[in-house]
Amino acid sequence: MKKIEHIGIAVKSLKESNVLFEKLFGNPPYKEEEVKSEGVKTSFFMNGPNKIELLEATNEDSPIAKFLEKKGEGIHHVAFDVEDIDSEIKRLKKEGFVVLNDVPKKGADNKLVVFLHPKSTNGVLIELCQDATKK
Amino acid sequence: MKKIEHIGIAVKSLKESNVLFEKLFGNPPYKEEEVKSEGVKTSFFMNGPNKIELLEATNEDSPIAKFLEKKGEGIHHVAFDVEDIDSEIKRLKKEGFVVLNDVPKKGADNKLVVFLHPKSTNGVLIELCQDATKK
Repeated sequence: MKKIEHIGIAVKSLKESNVLFEKLFGNPPYKEEEVKSEGVKTSFFMNGPNKIELLEATNEDSPIAKFLEKKGEGIHHVAFDVEDIDSEIKRLKKEGFVVLNDVPKKGADNKLVVFLHPKSTNGVLIELCQDATKK
Repeated sequence: MKKIEHIGIAVKSLKESNVLFEKLFGNPPYKEEEVKSEGVKTSFFMNGPNKIELLEATNEDSPIAKFLEKKGEGIHHVAFDVEDIDSEIKRLKKEGFVVLNDVPKKGADNKLVVFLHPKSTNGVLIELCQDATKK
């Protein structure tokens, strides 16, 4: 794991939160993107070597809609940048972590991603992501 | 804001979680430190340009004890590295953010820190920190 690639923050309104985080960072989001398979609209802010992803639900079955209902707005996940996602999945399963999807799937921002179940990681939803262009 | 300095994760047992996160990162924590004024014991893992801080409560009045009671284990805060904490406090107050302590205080890992109230930041507890040796 090379660095924190991003943290994901669940928000009710992408439009309103974009204004808030632009004030915080002093820069607007560098992209917005919908991930239909996950039922989310996202925006991304750069912060040096790291990114901040804001996530708004686009339907009530979206994991973000469920998170907002249960916990309210706040940090939803942390994503770590990995060199080789397949070998990391193998290594972490051996170590006892519960990997939610064995085959990496296409995430936002041109990444291949897997999630580790928070039950195996102190309540933290951890995403591993690899640049899809390096696959 | 230069980067994500660290994310802070509230845990019940630093000892047990150190083992877990050592498996995740492939490296042990580089330091452990008690911050008596905050009622916490902490450990720090390096992850490229970023750090992961684990926090265990040392008494029941600790903010971490209250967080665990209310929300359970999980991500507690995100900290951003800033060049000049005093000018950032001024700038963010002007932008409408609620700063919890106007005067930076001594945090773990040789930092001067302030927190922004989650009510003004989409439910995210944000810490700003500046290297205390640069002050």
